[in-house]
Amino acid sequence: MILTVTLNAALDLTYRVDALVPHGSHRVSTVVERAGGKGLNVARVLTRLGIKAVATGLLGGRNGERVAELLDVPATFTPIAGETRRTVVVVDGDATGFWEPGPVVTPEEWLSFVDRYTALLNVSRVVVLSGSLPAGLPVDAYAVLVAAAKAAGVRVILDTSGPGLEAALSAGPDLVKPNAEELTEITARAHLDLSTVDGVVAAAQELRKRGVATVLASRGADGIIAVTPDGAFQAVPPHPVSGNPTGAGDACVAAVARSWAYRLSWPEALRDAVAASAAAVASPQAGELDLRTYLKLRHGVTVTSL
Amino acid sequence: MILTVTLNAALDLTYRVDALVPHGSHRVSTVVERAGGKGLNVARVLTRLGIKAVATGLLGGRNGERVAELLDVPATFTPIAGETRRTVVVVDGDATGFWEPGPVVTPEEWLSFVDRYTALLNVSRVVVLSGSLPAGLPVDAYAVLVAAAKAAGVRVILDTSGPGLEAALSAGPDLVKPNAEELTEITARAHLDLSTVDGVVAAAQELRKRGVATVLASRGADGIIAVTPDGAFQAVPPHPVSGNPTGAGDACVAAVARSWAYRLSWPEALRDAVAASAAAVASPQAGELDLRTYLKLRHGVTVTSL
Repeated sequence: MILTVTLNAALDLTYRVDALVPHGSHRVSTVVERAGGKGLNVARVLTRLGIKAVATGLLGGRNGERVAELLDVPATFTPIAGETRRTVVVVDGDATGFWEPGPVVTPEEWLSFVDRYTALLNVSRVVVLSGSLPAGLPVDAYAVLVAAAKAAGVRVILDTSGPGLEAALSAGPDLVKPNAEELTEITARAHLDLSTVDGVVAAAQELRKRGVATVLASRGADGIIAVTPDGAFQAVPPHPVSGNPTGAGDACVAAVARSWAYRLSWPEALRDAVAASAAAVASPQAGELDLRTYLKLRHGVTVTSL
Repeated sequence: MILTVTLNAALDLTYRVDALVPHGSHRVSTVVERAGGKGLNVARVLTRLGIKAVATGLLGGRNGERVAELLDVPATFTPIAGETRRTVVVVDGDATGFWEPGPVVTPEEWLSFVDRYTALLNVSRVVVLSGSLPAGLPVDAYAVLVAAAKAAGVRVILDTSGPGLEAALSAGPDLVKPNAEELTEITARAHLDLSTVDGVVAAAQELRKRGVATVLASRGADGIIAVTPDGAFQAVPPHPVSGNPTGAGDACVAAVARSWAYRLSWPEALRDAVAASAAAVASPQAGELDLRTYLKLRHGVTVTSL
């Protein structure tokens, strides 16, 4: 089983309007409500690929109840008193997003979650930790979860950013997946040119020195550069795919988690990861995956050793 | 007691952001949740003015439960199965609004509401019907409520627009409060110049011929023109008031309802109505009323017979 963790889940609202006019009034023609959060996207992609995944995390208030109702993957969440956040995305062809700040989690709620998480680790092969930390959690919250996974012998992927990522590096996650911006932030002092492959590899090596086994740098339409214990690789899709990039990173992470559960080689894993990302971009619904695109692209992905 | 009716209540969300950028992503710094709907605003202003008001209408789903929790006026709502709508207003100095379409009300729910409403009429002196009709209600829904009020000997104010207003005119509401746009729509065939006082009075007379006793035409910063059974009046504030015009019309209607409960003359009623509107504009929170501004402005309003 693959466990996905979403500490800052959301009730995602998509509003369709004719055209967004700043400082105007808009009648929303349709409202779509969805269970949101990066870990839920990962679980959804895994389920779609036929892999057993269970989602966990924190849910609270009326929005949390609604998220629980909308869940389309097996899940077991820890209840909290605070109100799970909403996200509102206004679509008029293009998308404009508004992210609520989210609940404040109490120390007791956090301890209760860590208990649940530790129990779930006993039946997991891989755990994926995704997304932002809600307020109230210690900055080393992900470090605690990474350490618990390693103690339980479960491979752990950490897909987050900012201080929560920084604080968790020394706990030794098996994989982190910074985007260019995150990589720039974290390696600012090294003055690397991240527009070049060499620069990205050097930045990834910096992160590996700090305790991470594998760094997977997503480069949008240019695919992925992975620096692993088995060497550095570049994986590139056969052609650019246009669509909605939201959720592409989650599909990528889901593919890597799956490859670990099946003990695939890195080149195989990266081929799957790039194809899954591109298939997520091609899918009209954010966080979903177009299976036909995935299967088609998979054969065309080029993986080279660096 | 004054009864206010809100058939399409809302969970109002106000999001503060730094600056609204179309097709960008925004972190919301603060979220304010509020029980929304024009009838609730009217009840709130009346309560603020020390008048006993009760709010009724329809509420459903989790959003409806949240609205009930947030209610700050005495209220008795009919439960419905559909989900009460949300409104999202994004504030970055100026306001950008998104209105969800609202629930679909079933015929059984509507009958159940009409029963509750009829019972409440027995203990009411004035009833105020405010806002849009949710989907599923017959276009003559307000006509039914107006007729029931008249049968019960309760004076009735109807503050709505579009087909729901048109369909209710012949039921004979005691007062309607169209704004310039609504007046233009309804009197389009008469080719009147609504930028002139004479044009507005003529348009109001057109509406009176269709069954309405009093037409109160709001003219924003220029105050009010009222065409009543006791003659036509113009009421003008002493000076323009800047601020948030949302809820000004509801404050105006509340002042008229109060004047009726106290059997005030039209000039007195209109003085109060203009002062209350302006005080609502001056209030930072939409749907609230700045009491000091109200009391100060009241003495400065000029009312003239036309």
